[in-house]
Amino acid sequence: MAGKKKFIAVIGGSQCSSQEAKLAEEVGRELAKQGAALVCGGLGGVMEAACKGASSEGGVTIGILPGENRQAANSYVQIPIVTGIGYARNVAVVKSAQAVIAIGGNYGTLSEIAHALQSGIPVIGLNTWSLSRNGQPDDSIIPAQNPIEAVNIALSLVTNQ
Amino acid sequence: MAGKKKFIAVIGGSQCSSQEAKLAEEVGRELAKQGAALVCGGLGGVMEAACKGASSEGGVTIGILPGENRQAANSYVQIPIVTGIGYARNVAVVKSAQAVIAIGGNYGTLSEIAHALQSGIPVIGLNTWSLSRNGQPDDSIIPAQNPIEAVNIALSLVTNQ
Amino acid sequence: MAGKKKFIAVIGGSQCSSQEAKLAEEVGRELAKQGAALVCGGLGGVMEAACKGASSEGGVTIGILPGENRQAANSYVQIPIVTGIGYARNVAVVKSAQAVIAIGGNYGTLSEIAHALQSGIPVIGLNTWSLSRNGQPDDSIIPAQNPIEAVNIALSLVTNQ
Amino acid sequence: MAGKKKFIAVIGGSQCSSQEAKLAEEVGRELAKQGAALVCGGLGGVMEAACKGASSEGGVTIGILPGENRQAANSYVQIPIVTGIGYARNVAVVKSAQAVIAIGGNYGTLSEIAHALQSGIPVIGLNTWSLSRNGQPDDSIIPAQNPIEAVNIALSLVTNQ
Repeated sequence: MAGKKKFIAVIGGSQCSSQEAKLAEEVGRELAKQGAALVCGGLGGVMEAACKGASSEGGVTIGILPGENRQAANSYVQIPIVTGIGYARNVAVVKSAQAVIAIGGNYGTLSEIAHALQSGIPVIGLNTWSLSRNGQPDDSIIPAQNPIEAVNIALSLVTNQ
Repeated sequence: MAGKKKFIAVIGGSQCSSQEAKLAEEVGRELAKQGAALVCGGLGGVMEAACKGASSEGGVTIGILPGENRQAANSYVQIPIVTGIGYARNVAVVKSAQAVIAIGGNYGTLSEIAHALQSGIPVIGLNTWSLSRNGQPDDSIIPAQNPIEAVNIALSLVTNQ
Repeated sequence: MAGKKKFIAVIGGSQCSSQEAKLAEEVGRELAKQGAALVCGGLGGVMEAACKGASSEGGVTIGILPGENRQAANSYVQIPIVTGIGYARNVAVVKSAQAVIAIGGNYGTLSEIAHALQSGIPVIGLNTWSLSRNGQPDDSIIPAQNPIEAVNIALSLVTNQ
Repeated sequence: MAGKKKFIAVIGGSQCSSQEAKLAEEVGRELAKQGAALVCGGLGGVMEAACKGASSEGGVTIGILPGENRQAANSYVQIPIVTGIGYARNVAVVKSAQAVIAIGGNYGTLSEIAHALQSGIPVIGLNTWSLSRNGQPDDSIIPAQNPIEAVNIALSLVTNQ
């Protein structure tokens, strides 16, 4: 079954604007409607909003937590993974997904974007970071105009064998 | 929901005897019958047998993988977590559970037993390691006579708030 | 003694241009001249060049390796740390330093920059990434014009108690 | 140089008896006398005593810390490595050594013994854990009668290429 269901990470700040929360909730809802499992860091803000959206459509929500305590998971996380490895868990969040949707976000989100790109996992962005290297723009983050487009791009890039 | 479902880890060798596989499969089956989610390291041997048993009863199976590749998960893992942190993932396997059932096992399993005991997570043993410290027996591993007893002890020790 | 010596990380690609190698070697040399210890990821490219420079001036070189094998360290690493946790070691590279100098670099370097900024560790950049968030430039990476300026800025930002 | 100097880990409780502290200090002293670098978890108890002993003979002391803060290192640690990965750092402590000397210890020490044996790194024991598996004694931990014997065994088992 691991090879059948699609796993998509939604990343963003543990605190976020109401607009970001709205985007995240729509992304979560659409992922669930299309049958994908949601992977996230399990905490508040964008993560909680995405889990809330996915839950409202009966989707699976996985929260990969940094700390030692499963009680830190937001209340919409069904599968809490307790890593105890702090922010090194950011690596596991993105590697556990086949595509990543980034919404807003601070430096933690930027580290996840970087780890995903390093691992060849596609990143779709909604109002998030943009990058340039040595003065040249780096276009690796695929921009999306809205949550449904973000989900459609993400799922189209996952080809399960 | 994180606070409702019980999460139990089954640990043991990625290669195992047919007797250990039989024990693991029964443990997995019984966990699923009693509605608990199975957490494991996601690979072969005891992990695969436990996932097979749980799947046969419609249970949830979570595999926390050491490597970079979700394809390494055994075919009964429904939720593959790709950590990329090698054997340091052993810590996450036990911390993601509320009780641990150890079946046989080699040094990797011993490390998981130790991490669980260090974290105050109860360990139930079936034909596994026994410990003594400075010549004094350490009775922290709770012995079980059979798979059903192991599951019953494990679940009785988890009190979800 | 941990509170006396200054620890500075030099980050950059494991493959790099000859210009980047030259910058890294000068940074390493200057760090050693000023008595700072060099922390890096222990591999080739920018890391090796920085270690070479530091060694030439009798400096201390620490290489925090991703894999399982100390033999992967470049030949100028005096203190190899073998983490076995893959790219999650990027977190340890920056957290083990009191300031970070980034030279060129790919997505791995970007993840280290992000982890450093998330932890409040200053980042000085030489021909490296630049960032903007939601269309607004993020000026957290402090630009330096040359290796000696990069080292001077880094050391000026470390105030050992 | 990584291939020249020998790196030996000393593991044991962050709280320990005065007898264990005395053993650890002697081990540290002897390692330094014989030119080996000391690797440990960087905290108190056995770790601090070993670092104190090594420092008294001018040895190199490396502390691989679980937390986010270099100030947690004991005052004899010269090279603090700040991992931020919690007890998963136990893996890095043993993998960064070519042999391990265990003194007393609790479950954290047991996890380090297990990770070392899993990685094929020899473990020498002074009043520490003993193991049996499925009722059969496991003799992988090499017993030593005193600190000097422990160091001699450890160094004899490291053959640098």
